[in-house]
Amino acid sequence: MIDFELKNLVELALKEDLGFGDVTSELTVGLEVRGRAKIVAREPLVLSGLPAALMAFKLVDSKLAVKSEASEGQDLAAGDEVLGLAGRARSILMGERVALNFLGRLSGVATLTGKYVKAAAIIRGAAPKILDTRKTTPGLRALEKAAARHGGGHNHRFCLGDGILIKDNHIAAAGSIEKALKMAKEKAPHNLKIEIEVDNLGQLLEALEHGADAILLDNMDIPTLEKAVALANDFFKPHPRRVLLEASGGVTLENVPGIALAGVDFISVGALTHSAPAADLGLDWL
Amino acid sequence: MIDFELKNLVELALKEDLGFGDVTSELTVGLEVRGRAKIVAREPLVLSGLPAALMAFKLVDSKLAVKSEASEGQDLAAGDEVLGLAGRARSILMGERVALNFLGRLSGVATLTGKYVKAAAIIRGAAPKILDTRKTTPGLRALEKAAARHGGGHNHRFCLGDGILIKDNHIAAAGSIEKALKMAKEKAPHNLKIEIEVDNLGQLLEALEHGADAILLDNMDIPTLEKAVALANDFFKPHPRRVLLEASGGVTLENVPGIALAGVDFISVGALTHSAPAADLGLDWL
Amino acid sequence: MIDFELKNLVELALKEDLGFGDVTSELTVGLEVRGRAKIVAREPLVLSGLPAALMAFKLVDSKLAVKSEASEGQDLAAGDEVLGLAGRARSILMGERVALNFLGRLSGVATLTGKYVKAAAIIRGAAPKILDTRKTTPGLRALEKAAARHGGGHNHRFCLGDGILIKDNHIAAAGSIEKALKMAKEKAPHNLKIEIEVDNLGQLLEALEHGADAILLDNMDIPTLEKAVALANDFFKPHPRRVLLEASGGVTLENVPGIALAGVDFISVGALTHSAPAADLGLDWL
Amino acid sequence: MIDFELKNLVELALKEDLGFGDVTSELTVGLEVRGRAKIVAREPLVLSGLPAALMAFKLVDSKLAVKSEASEGQDLAAGDEVLGLAGRARSILMGERVALNFLGRLSGVATLTGKYVKAAAIIRGAAPKILDTRKTTPGLRALEKAAARHGGGHNHRFCLGDGILIKDNHIAAAGSIEKALKMAKEKAPHNLKIEIEVDNLGQLLEALEHGADAILLDNMDIPTLEKAVALANDFFKPHPRRVLLEASGGVTLENVPGIALAGVDFISVGALTHSAPAADLGLDWL
Amino acid sequence: MIDFELKNLVELALKEDLGFGDVTSELTVGLEVRGRAKIVAREPLVLSGLPAALMAFKLVDSKLAVKSEASEGQDLAAGDEVLGLAGRARSILMGERVALNFLGRLSGVATLTGKYVKAAAIIRGAAPKILDTRKTTPGLRALEKAAARHGGGHNHRFCLGDGILIKDNHIAAAGSIEKALKMAKEKAPHNLKIEIEVDNLGQLLEALEHGADAILLDNMDIPTLEKAVALANDFFKPHPRRVLLEASGGVTLENVPGIALAGVDFISVGALTHSAPAADLGLDWL
Amino acid sequence: MIDFELKNLVELALKEDLGFGDVTSELTVGLEVRGRAKIVAREPLVLSGLPAALMAFKLVDSKLAVKSEASEGQDLAAGDEVLGLAGRARSILMGERVALNFLGRLSGVATLTGKYVKAAAIIRGAAPKILDTRKTTPGLRALEKAAARHGGGHNHRFCLGDGILIKDNHIAAAGSIEKALKMAKEKAPHNLKIEIEVDNLGQLLEALEHGADAILLDNMDIPTLEKAVALANDFFKPHPRRVLLEASGGVTLENVPGIALAGVDFISVGALTHSAPAADLGLDWL
Repeated sequence: MIDFELKNLVELALKEDLGFGDVTSELTVGLEVRGRAKIVAREPLVLSGLPAALMAFKLVDSKLAVKSEASEGQDLAAGDEVLGLAGRARSILMGERVALNFLGRLSGVATLTGKYVKAAAIIRGAAPKILDTRKTTPGLRALEKAAARHGGGHNHRFCLGDGILIKDNHIAAAGSIEKALKMAKEKAPHNLKIEIEVDNLGQLLEALEHGADAILLDNMDIPTLEKAVALANDFFKPHPRRVLLEASGGVTLENVPGIALAGVDFISVGALTHSAPAADLGLDWL
Repeated sequence: MIDFELKNLVELALKEDLGFGDVTSELTVGLEVRGRAKIVAREPLVLSGLPAALMAFKLVDSKLAVKSEASEGQDLAAGDEVLGLAGRARSILMGERVALNFLGRLSGVATLTGKYVKAAAIIRGAAPKILDTRKTTPGLRALEKAAARHGGGHNHRFCLGDGILIKDNHIAAAGSIEKALKMAKEKAPHNLKIEIEVDNLGQLLEALEHGADAILLDNMDIPTLEKAVALANDFFKPHPRRVLLEASGGVTLENVPGIALAGVDFISVGALTHSAPAADLGLDWL
Repeated sequence: MIDFELKNLVELALKEDLGFGDVTSELTVGLEVRGRAKIVAREPLVLSGLPAALMAFKLVDSKLAVKSEASEGQDLAAGDEVLGLAGRARSILMGERVALNFLGRLSGVATLTGKYVKAAAIIRGAAPKILDTRKTTPGLRALEKAAARHGGGHNHRFCLGDGILIKDNHIAAAGSIEKALKMAKEKAPHNLKIEIEVDNLGQLLEALEHGADAILLDNMDIPTLEKAVALANDFFKPHPRRVLLEASGGVTLENVPGIALAGVDFISVGALTHSAPAADLGLDWL
Repeated sequence: MIDFELKNLVELALKEDLGFGDVTSELTVGLEVRGRAKIVAREPLVLSGLPAALMAFKLVDSKLAVKSEASEGQDLAAGDEVLGLAGRARSILMGERVALNFLGRLSGVATLTGKYVKAAAIIRGAAPKILDTRKTTPGLRALEKAAARHGGGHNHRFCLGDGILIKDNHIAAAGSIEKALKMAKEKAPHNLKIEIEVDNLGQLLEALEHGADAILLDNMDIPTLEKAVALANDFFKPHPRRVLLEASGGVTLENVPGIALAGVDFISVGALTHSAPAADLGLDWL
Repeated sequence: MIDFELKNLVELALKEDLGFGDVTSELTVGLEVRGRAKIVAREPLVLSGLPAALMAFKLVDSKLAVKSEASEGQDLAAGDEVLGLAGRARSILMGERVALNFLGRLSGVATLTGKYVKAAAIIRGAAPKILDTRKTTPGLRALEKAAARHGGGHNHRFCLGDGILIKDNHIAAAGSIEKALKMAKEKAPHNLKIEIEVDNLGQLLEALEHGADAILLDNMDIPTLEKAVALANDFFKPHPRRVLLEASGGVTLENVPGIALAGVDFISVGALTHSAPAADLGLDWL
Repeated sequence: MIDFELKNLVELALKEDLGFGDVTSELTVGLEVRGRAKIVAREPLVLSGLPAALMAFKLVDSKLAVKSEASEGQDLAAGDEVLGLAGRARSILMGERVALNFLGRLSGVATLTGKYVKAAAIIRGAAPKILDTRKTTPGLRALEKAAARHGGGHNHRFCLGDGILIKDNHIAAAGSIEKALKMAKEKAPHNLKIEIEVDNLGQLLEALEHGADAILLDNMDIPTLEKAVALANDFFKPHPRRVLLEASGGVTLENVPGIALAGVDFISVGALTHSAPAADLGLDWL
């Protein structure tokens, strides 16, 4: 996200939070009062959202001294400092909530992603990648996908325009997996691979036979996933498997190790972005 | 939120999700293919976000027939229908994710709020109100605060401009609780009440003596909250208590009943908006 | 108003005034011509609008040296300098009209407010506050309300969201003053006071009995206002009056002293923002 | 002003006035309450701003029935109806202030313009035209210039791009009136006339000799204006005068007839837009 | 491009062309004058830009009757009708230029693309696809890429985010073709193929050996292209070639058949969008 | 075009080209890699678009060192440097295409204009001016009109608001050339001249008789243009011709000298902006 796009988003958040001004601070904190403060982690977390937090303070008052004390994707312990602030106290108070809202949500995503990544790393050197989805907060997609990366995850497509994923309804409209894959291969932009979603091993075989580049194994339990991987491996023998396999649906921190052991290439998890609890950060005055 | 404001937000979300277009559907679903679908709850939930979902489909294709089958704030069971769709299949596919992202997040907030409201309703007819906070998603404040209402909660101030809440740092800047309250009372807009945050019973007494309209009891355990309520009641005797008491900090579904029994007027819960898991809804084709 | 919001507004004004460029200056003033100029008051006035004026010049040409020579809310005499300018002559000419349009209108509001404030200060130490209204210029509310403050006035609510004011039509819809107040008290956000508009002493009594926090005395003549104040004082005896009284409607510079003497807390004046003549300022080249 | 531009402006005004919603109406007026109302003139006025008022109500609630009862530029008496409304009461209350703010300001401009036009019409069939200036409210130029037309006035240039007006500072930069006019004539867009500002009869002669298309007579008293007209007439004898003369500066309703009698073609009046008091209109419920 | 995005673009164009209004029509065409007109092709062309043209007229005046008489991508002869108009004459005059500007530019792109597509179709059933590039007009990318499709072309990536194309500078930064491809394969989003640009046959071989999905043959003459194709075919023997080959650089209508015969899969042509002359269309009154 | 307007346009172009980010560079170019590069002309051209190019790089990365090596309107030879760049390599790669797209298109317009200007300069010291039209790219009017000036051309009106040009349809609506000119003269803003379009010598005479300020000679061949000039000269004899004559329609580089010799004041050429091929510029790494 380029600076000017982030700026638009942070301005939106500031307008929302400031309305016609910070009445309380105007009543109780003299314009001349200056202060120093820091934002700290209040629990272990993976940091994300720092540029938005910095920008919130700078947009409120370009004269505030704002200093990063950590970096995106860093593992922080409770008490670790994230950024330092010095300047007009009112300005710090005005930027505080917006900065924390960005940091809390995005570090929440990064932290949860980090947990999935660790849980999937059960086979040394061969862990499947944890992928996010398009189940993001309206307006925050770029930031939440960056947060997933900060947590060690990888990004699935960003939007409907930068990836082909043929789902059940596309297959129904096309008539069959075979037909859908043919249509896609014939006209797809040459820079995009073709991924297709399958529900069972029969569909998997059909997808393999018609040359999908990647296959999403939808809502399969672990034994079925294991069979799917075996089936795909067999299909290409004696060559190495030339198709990417993605497990998706019903993934939890508990079953991730099992899914990883099944041998898929990717595990996609909607919860990374749609259900991550906010990470706990706070602002302390010095 | 007026229609044209919601429209701007939904357009933002659609641009984010569509990029330069839905490649997959363009490849596999003919422009002439028509379909019927419905969005349904996949788990029990309190519905919120319906107008955004409707608007997403209408903005993608104004000729889609879109019909509400439930209403904001309604309790739904798994399988209950939320809205029905009929028209060009591609249009339904293009609007699907954005509509579900709004519904999932906002119904998530409403549903979690509903749980807190129920947990607080331990004393028949005298339950404290559950309040949201400003810990909302950047860009979604109005919608998330509406979702909290749909779940039976009430809204704390919307922004720094429509409520006075004197916190520890304001008190520090002003010099004392007494001074902060005096400054606020002298110049506050006459339509706003004055709320102040206190950490202990000594501060509570000071706030009562200098005429706060409302007092936020910050991070007190239940026994302390009970003492705080008693102290405030005593202060006004023989008259009824003329100050509003709000418990805040460390509130969970487990301790809400105890806090409610302590006798406060409000319990504010940041988690309603910052950590609600998405509610599960999906789109089914007919 | 934060800087980036002011910037948007000033950009709007500049686009409006510049169109595709300043043809005259391009024809007659070489790009290399430099100049020095100052903006001065051409009549006694209370200054408002300085940040917008400064920003207009900076947005036209970030290399212009622009220096404030006075401050918001300052009383200026004819001839007093407001700001000084040095740099490319064309840039000064391009920013001139927009800067003066902001200064003229906003100083006009501040100056007129100042006159009302002086007229109301008839009782030493106990003058009612002069309040503005929502009768502002579309797009300029925040600036005009700041101008009212610069003139010594106070702000009534900024919008329909940060204050409760129950008017005749609300009362009619609710059924009675009693019912309207009950409805409001039951559900009103706890940070907002409840103000209600009354037309006569009977309504005033009803509003007092049902616990309004503030009462707007609408369009009452001075003798009636005096009776209203007495009635309210009596109602709370022997305690001090615990309701705020606002006189509104038909207020002029002539009758303000009389209204002030009647003993109300606030006098609100729509004319501050809707009918203030522009203050006279001009740009002089050195 | 095309519809979509007006829409942007009215949306801006509505956002400003509604904030996060109309708290009072939500508390006291049921969603089901319907009403009928009309906006009426409370004093004689020339109407302007009707499309903005209509749009404000339509944007708040597209289901409101809104009906014009008068037209732009119409002379209204006190009590005359401007528009009629029927529908959800809350929607009428939400749009009321914004609609009235547009109508009040713009009808104020139209009404004041109408007075100047009448005052200038002292010579039957040969009255000079009353012109507005660029001294308009930031953001409202197109609407205020339309209001001036509704009042019978004419528009001076809309911005720095659609008219050439060489002022004293341009002359100073160019070196002399002669040089400034030569520079302008050589390179001016062929669709624009060249107007120049003069302070005295000597400058007037110089401007005539070098072929100005129009001359602004700045801040001249009536006797000087008379001499200026005579001088210009003489210059072209025996042909009719081939230059337009505009009187500007210090124009009041009192001296307009005298200026008109002096024989100029145009009288420009900044006060039309910068100092018109709001016209008085109100909303009555039926 | 969804409707609301197109609307924003057309509004921008209308604001640019209308300024403060159509002075000429206001002076000479009464508001009551109605007319009928049609837009016609004045030379043979492939049509593109129709939705923008329709929207321009609708935005100027929603009451205009506007009717499509042709469709996007259609081959038109001189004199063929594109759209028909009926309604207020002023509205037609106000929308005319913007509508024609969109139609002229976009049909220009479509028409030129059509010529390249025909020139490449030298081998029946095995013509390489003609691709556009990112060399588009700022602000018009989506429309110009649609125009290329209307002309029978295909789209290369839409932006830097939906395709991987490793160019000389990326290779230099990575160290070698091998290193660049390894880096890309390791971390690339799994839905994107990897294309790399090569300048000579040695680089081509290196790219083949390290598994590029597609290879852009930059600025090669036809004999070299022939060798490149042969080399790639040999590399995969006895299997069919499993790499896409794109010719790019110095393509003209003259050398396209030769390039096509060389056997590449794609020919990309910057001129389609950066140098297409406008197609000639005009508005005729009936 | 003021900086902030240019900024909006360049941001639009960058968003379009960057999408969610530059995947290729992120994969293959380390964040720490720095580079130096220059943009150079690859063919002789007249430069235009430099400020947009500079801004593109600055918006992508405010820390890039960006240095102009040429100026707007300058004649460049193949190989001449336009601007120099130093800093993070990724940033240069991200800004490259947008910068080149602006430079290519605008220098294309300037270069083509330059050719027309030279072709028209057949009579030493008395060449007609080459004018652009409103046939510009949507969104780029101000830049393309500046480019025409950089090429030595002059601007016709910028929009429908800053010039009066009565065309055939206006004449038809008004009833006759006489009536149209009368209507225009009576009410036209006093700062605008009145131009009218004529198709033949009869209409020309009518336009002269009713006092047009300028006359557009539409689609006349050279012999007719010569007669038109003679007719206009005769009309004013013995005085010099007091009307401006503009030739328009069917102008090519081939017939421009002949049109110039015919003696018109202006030649307007739509192709300058609607059909100029892009100038060839490229970025070279050092």
